[in-house]
Amino acid sequence: MDIQELVKNLKTTNDSKIVMLVADGLGGLPIEPGGPTELEAAKTPHLDALARRGVQGSMIPIKPGITPGSGPGHLGLFGYDPVKYLIGRGALEATGVGFKLGPDDVAIRCNFCSLDTEGRITDRRAGRISTEESAPLAVKLRQVQIPGVKVFVEPVKEHRFVVVFRGEGLGGKVADTDPQRTGVPPLEPVPVDEPSERTAEIAREFIVQAREFLADQPKANGLTMRGFSVKPHLPTYEEVYGLKAAAIAVYPMYKGLAQLVGMAKVGQPGSLAEEIDVLEQVWNDFDFFFVHFKYTDSRGEDGNFAEKVKMIEEFDSIVPRVTALNPTVLIVTADHSTPAALKNHSWHPVPTLLVADTCRPDACEAYSETESLRGGLGQFEAVYLMPLAMAHAERIGKFGA
Amino acid sequence: MDIQELVKNLKTTNDSKIVMLVADGLGGLPIEPGGPTELEAAKTPHLDALARRGVQGSMIPIKPGITPGSGPGHLGLFGYDPVKYLIGRGALEATGVGFKLGPDDVAIRCNFCSLDTEGRITDRRAGRISTEESAPLAVKLRQVQIPGVKVFVEPVKEHRFVVVFRGEGLGGKVADTDPQRTGVPPLEPVPVDEPSERTAEIAREFIVQAREFLADQPKANGLTMRGFSVKPHLPTYEEVYGLKAAAIAVYPMYKGLAQLVGMAKVGQPGSLAEEIDVLEQVWNDFDFFFVHFKYTDSRGEDGNFAEKVKMIEEFDSIVPRVTALNPTVLIVTADHSTPAALKNHSWHPVPTLLVADTCRPDACEAYSETESLRGGLGQFEAVYLMPLAMAHAERIGKFGA
Repeated sequence: MDIQELVKNLKTTNDSKIVMLVADGLGGLPIEPGGPTELEAAKTPHLDALARRGVQGSMIPIKPGITPGSGPGHLGLFGYDPVKYLIGRGALEATGVGFKLGPDDVAIRCNFCSLDTEGRITDRRAGRISTEESAPLAVKLRQVQIPGVKVFVEPVKEHRFVVVFRGEGLGGKVADTDPQRTGVPPLEPVPVDEPSERTAEIAREFIVQAREFLADQPKANGLTMRGFSVKPHLPTYEEVYGLKAAAIAVYPMYKGLAQLVGMAKVGQPGSLAEEIDVLEQVWNDFDFFFVHFKYTDSRGEDGNFAEKVKMIEEFDSIVPRVTALNPTVLIVTADHSTPAALKNHSWHPVPTLLVADTCRPDACEAYSETESLRGGLGQFEAVYLMPLAMAHAERIGKFGA
Repeated sequence: MDIQELVKNLKTTNDSKIVMLVADGLGGLPIEPGGPTELEAAKTPHLDALARRGVQGSMIPIKPGITPGSGPGHLGLFGYDPVKYLIGRGALEATGVGFKLGPDDVAIRCNFCSLDTEGRITDRRAGRISTEESAPLAVKLRQVQIPGVKVFVEPVKEHRFVVVFRGEGLGGKVADTDPQRTGVPPLEPVPVDEPSERTAEIAREFIVQAREFLADQPKANGLTMRGFSVKPHLPTYEEVYGLKAAAIAVYPMYKGLAQLVGMAKVGQPGSLAEEIDVLEQVWNDFDFFFVHFKYTDSRGEDGNFAEKVKMIEEFDSIVPRVTALNPTVLIVTADHSTPAALKNHSWHPVPTLLVADTCRPDACEAYSETESLRGGLGQFEAVYLMPLAMAHAERIGKFGA
């Protein structure tokens, strides 16, 4: 029995409300030796006040040394062991563009590529085609028709797009068709198990028709398929925690990840301030609120330390609006670190705050990577965050008599 | 191989003596914002001196966020994974009244209830009957006779009592008969597996006879049965650690839990001072001594901060008598927190001290929740406490060459 099953078995219910504020990629690194991290450089009076009231810890997103993508990072925050619940690349890509996968769907991550007259790949990314050029091509492929199957095609960025086949009993195990090199044709879609034989046939038919639609294209006249996957089966927030949960996010990826665990996506906010508007509007309708702020991660990936600092300060500024709602448990955390110094996600632990009347306060004076090391939550893995939130909301019964 | 199996395989032997002082429910919370916990408010000069000599840590009883009952709390302290070794409610209740379960026993937690003339429950707790009234009724039920089975009935508190059936091959998987509501009759005992069919038959026969003995009772004229369970199979302290272990406790529950792992219950102390008398008396006869102090938990459950502080001070006062015995390893810990502020067990970590000549001392100046956060044992789960004790007693050999 893992920790999530334990919580599932022991959960109780009450009128408490839990808010989880996620500043994507919040954790950072000094940009110069001896300097502060982005969070330490930022002026965060409201978060620091929370740190004095609540309890802090240093949260490991997956396991020490492991850098998470957005999918596993969020699954961990939501309390689902990210190593146990793998989301296929196709399913993640579909989720990322806001496509709501159903139980009869197989999602595939596709790339446009360039083929020579003999069908051999000359460029695996179709000459780094722009989104402006590629998106209409993806839309054109919606004309593909395969008997007994519904076909969806969604543009992504640049050479990428997503294909979803909807049909009963389709298996999700088909090998990638990208040969990972040029000078050879794309591979045939090969089924890995019996239920996927029909999926592979459909994929072959899709490729044949797609190449006809693309035949006159100078760059994107072919395609490869990767990450065939069905919708991952995740127990819902309602099942696991007994929580009616709302996801408030600007970007489709995060709404999609939250929907995979049964959260309702609410509102259509376009900024952090609008996300808090939504939070206020739906406050009485849910028990749990996941609020996602993207730009701390974006500026980290840009390698822009100063701009990431500003984003953290923007994030800090909305805290009073959240505390005014008087949540039973308020969590401030991130799915992973994205240090500007690395321009990428990283494995470094994430400072994490939990504020509730049932907290045992610690000696932390500020919300920061350094202070989090002496926090009362110690160093802990992300899958324990939801159990801790549930405990502080007094929503977990006693284990054994 | 879990940590306990590792220790079992690596254990060695010597003349060391290990004392584990358990102040039940010791961990606490401030009763007012910014205030001290019970332990921090208490004057504990002897425990603070130990903190300067030894090494401290913040111990998680089960897993982060999980609040243990007394059973799982103590199993963890004893080094048995409480999620792996579940003790059934019936077995725990029998243990709690000092009934020593054997391998052929099925224990059941029973409630007296009130039935109307048509056998429907009108009160699930027999009108909150007092122990004075209910205990003689439980004793009366010892007259039930079932061929081929030995029947034991033990009074507990108020409407509760324990029934044990002793007979070869009896399964412990029978569904609860408490319908959890009034206006309906108790459920029939239904077996969940084949070996429990006979157990369910015996239970049915017990109920028929019991109702005859109770027929003239105004309140307690019926009963419900819950938590059918056999004795959990736990390897003994001797098998796992090679330790001859003694349990010194006032309350039957804790002696019972210690007996489940093969400890000998010694003496019949009625107070903490008498427990230390027993410790001194049996000092030469054992390698390991579990000493249980109940009242820190009791006053926490009462919600009485000031009285819990006093109990902690009483606990502190006996420390010199323990150190005078010069144990190789002295542990001070608790099975869980019981903050007066919550009037209940909680999930909060427990400050834990380990004192031995082999300790690597840390910078802790006092024994407290806050100091424990900077202790050398870090934050750790209870199942690691015994391995640490064994190590500091130099009773674990090297792993690998």
